[in-house]
Amino acid sequence: MLIHIVGGGPRHLLPDLRSYDGNDVQWVGVDRGTKALLDFGLRPVRAFGDFDSLPAEEVKRLREMLPELDIWPAEKDKTDMEIALDWAVRQTDGAIRLFGATGGRLDHLFGNVELLLKYAGRPIELIDRQNVLTVHLPGVHTVARDDRYRYVSYIPISETVAELTLTGFKYPLTNCHISRGSTLCISNELIQSSGTFSFSEGILMMIRSSDFAGCP
Amino acid sequence: MLIHIVGGGPRHLLPDLRSYDGNDVQWVGVDRGTKALLDFGLRPVRAFGDFDSLPAEEVKRLREMLPELDIWPAEKDKTDMEIALDWAVRQTDGAIRLFGATGGRLDHLFGNVELLLKYAGRPIELIDRQNVLTVHLPGVHTVARDDRYRYVSYIPISETVAELTLTGFKYPLTNCHISRGSTLCISNELIQSSGTFSFSEGILMMIRSSDFAGCP
Repeated sequence: MLIHIVGGGPRHLLPDLRSYDGNDVQWVGVDRGTKALLDFGLRPVRAFGDFDSLPAEEVKRLREMLPELDIWPAEKDKTDMEIALDWAVRQTDGAIRLFGATGGRLDHLFGNVELLLKYAGRPIELIDRQNVLTVHLPGVHTVARDDRYRYVSYIPISETVAELTLTGFKYPLTNCHISRGSTLCISNELIQSSGTFSFSEGILMMIRSSDFAGCP
Repeated sequence: MLIHIVGGGPRHLLPDLRSYDGNDVQWVGVDRGTKALLDFGLRPVRAFGDFDSLPAEEVKRLREMLPELDIWPAEKDKTDMEIALDWAVRQTDGAIRLFGATGGRLDHLFGNVELLLKYAGRPIELIDRQNVLTVHLPGVHTVARDDRYRYVSYIPISETVAELTLTGFKYPLTNCHISRGSTLCISNELIQSSGTFSFSEGILMMIRSSDFAGCP
């Protein structure tokens, strides 16, 4: 089972969510991301949030359509996205994808990246129209070329990332130590149909991205 | 002297750059950010980049207007923004502000945040229409209320941040240890005209942000 969670980030950054639908997919709405889901014709199995960003009549309509709506008070230690993700990781060991989690307020974006770090090692992706962001623990990881996302970048999250090795890339690396503050591994590209990245210590973020900006 | 650097991020995320102009300000363009600067009626003292994101006739026009344009080859170990910031930190100990450094490709955003980490302790701000992002070393720091940016969030960059204390905030903290992966300090607000944040160990990111989204 895959769980796809939709947050309330700027609507123009959402990809076409229908292309991520499937029989094995359960959709979850977070706050006004729930309305985005319904607008795409998708029905969430669950919705979280205090819904304070929506007008009262919209919330009433959502409540009628979704009796399983979970309303949380606004003052709390966790973001709505965290509550939703905590729930999702208890439901499945499979992939979890976060949409509507980028753009607008950077504190929301960085808060969502913190959540990926909280669950580092789990297959969780943060996706918008131009980017797929994931967080990885030491080991050997395979990455397939995806023409929707030409650039592949690596950012050290821990103070150092040891013995980073990239194969199948335009700019390969062998056993390279990179430190926080380094931009060495920004904007690489796969030149084979798939490649690998591996490292022995640290936490590494991978961002796959595209120049395509769409509107505006 | 203040140095304000404008990168090539999405134009709709730029604040009105003229409101950041002044006699003590030197403007610097990075790649197509140079064109954004000229469109605001501001003249850069220097421009960096390979300008491969602009049509040839635009580059010709920029070259005529700006004989000091620094053209760099496209394949290099540093991003254009890094080359510009490396230059700027050699010119001044004063504040440096980065505009056009958010939005669109997240690898660019995270690459720019890495640059703030490279120069942690220097007064460098990353600014867009909704956010001001800064990076801080241990000590006591003052933060003044700014009604343009209602929310103040703190994100641990190092594995832990020790003895974080917030005063003047809606949700104060005293000697709190926070770890990477924590969203505890997201969306706080100043309730006095100024407040302080202090910590004894680690690296801390502060993001001041606003719900105002503007277009689109």
